[in-house]
Amino acid sequence: MARYSPSLQNLISRLGKLPGVGGRSSQRLAFHILSMKQDEADALVNAITEARKLTRRCAVCQNFTDSDPCPICSDPKRDKTTLCVVESPRDVSAFERMHEYNGLYHVLHGVYNPVGNMNMNDITLTELFARLTEHDEIKEVIVATNQTAEGNATALYISRLLAPSGIKVTRLASGLPMGSDIEFADDITLASALKGRKTIGS
Amino acid sequence: MARYSPSLQNLISRLGKLPGVGGRSSQRLAFHILSMKQDEADALVNAITEARKLTRRCAVCQNFTDSDPCPICSDPKRDKTTLCVVESPRDVSAFERMHEYNGLYHVLHGVYNPVGNMNMNDITLTELFARLTEHDEIKEVIVATNQTAEGNATALYISRLLAPSGIKVTRLASGLPMGSDIEFADDITLASALKGRKTIGS
Repeated sequence: MARYSPSLQNLISRLGKLPGVGGRSSQRLAFHILSMKQDEADALVNAITEARKLTRRCAVCQNFTDSDPCPICSDPKRDKTTLCVVESPRDVSAFERMHEYNGLYHVLHGVYNPVGNMNMNDITLTELFARLTEHDEIKEVIVATNQTAEGNATALYISRLLAPSGIKVTRLASGLPMGSDIEFADDITLASALKGRKTIGS
Repeated sequence: MARYSPSLQNLISRLGKLPGVGGRSSQRLAFHILSMKQDEADALVNAITEARKLTRRCAVCQNFTDSDPCPICSDPKRDKTTLCVVESPRDVSAFERMHEYNGLYHVLHGVYNPVGNMNMNDITLTELFARLTEHDEIKEVIVATNQTAEGNATALYISRLLAPSGIKVTRLASGLPMGSDIEFADDITLASALKGRKTIGS
């Protein structure tokens, strides 16, 4: 005998396909959804359908947006000579939260990962190079992919392809996080901090 | 400036209202939902709306069901003399998984909780007593509410109200879980195990 009614079982299994939602939490979410007030449930369903309908990629920077070009690309106050290349829209959000960067962005929607099923054509490199060719005001490309093997490989690939263009390609500094203990640093981070050491006062 | 587009921000905040979904996971879920294939997204939305539309409470046992009465209540092979009273449909699922119980159920949809905003009228006690009055074939009521203060209070309340009826009211045994170490048992569990000790071989 089925443990739950077919429609409830279907909801549980659909929720269980979401990332980070295991067996127990899919049941908990399903029961919560059943017990929601009608307007709350409608709001949830509408949020899903509206976000999927309205959200598209900005034709310029490829970030998720409701308006194309996105508010950042169409903001005349942004510095149009600097371009920060990131893996995901969440990274743009992290940069914006910091309030220290005023340039433009380019969202790759992934990184080069030869072992995964993602290759160079799945990420928005073509759009990046087209953008750099068309807009010669960009003087610096900051490659802010994650400090992972894939992120580093993608950064290297971009820097090599841009080498002939004369555009300055930089990478975010790697090293010890602020406030961290050397004792607990992993070997690779410590080695990278040593290699990137700087003269005090410079 | 908003960190995400309005529709995406709305989806993130709606998902963040679900139980156990924090700030980070609501973003992760939202991005996952945006990247889903259209048929997968439709299936998720349909699962929510269908489950809410089709799922109702069984008029007899109050468990969630698509068909009324539910498959358990309408199963002629179930033992109609034993009724197991549980807090939630998840408890019915736990009992059914065990394959050791063949009686009927009654789902309270909560417990008596005087400090919370749930009182005796929010749970299906009226339906329980009506059922016991109408169907005199029920000989034993097993109160399988959780081993919490509220669960115990509810059990006591039910047993007192049923005392004049002559129906046998039992409670699940409390004690040390199978496979557990006495060393790590909490005081209340150990005290309950001591109090409920049994003669070996009986």
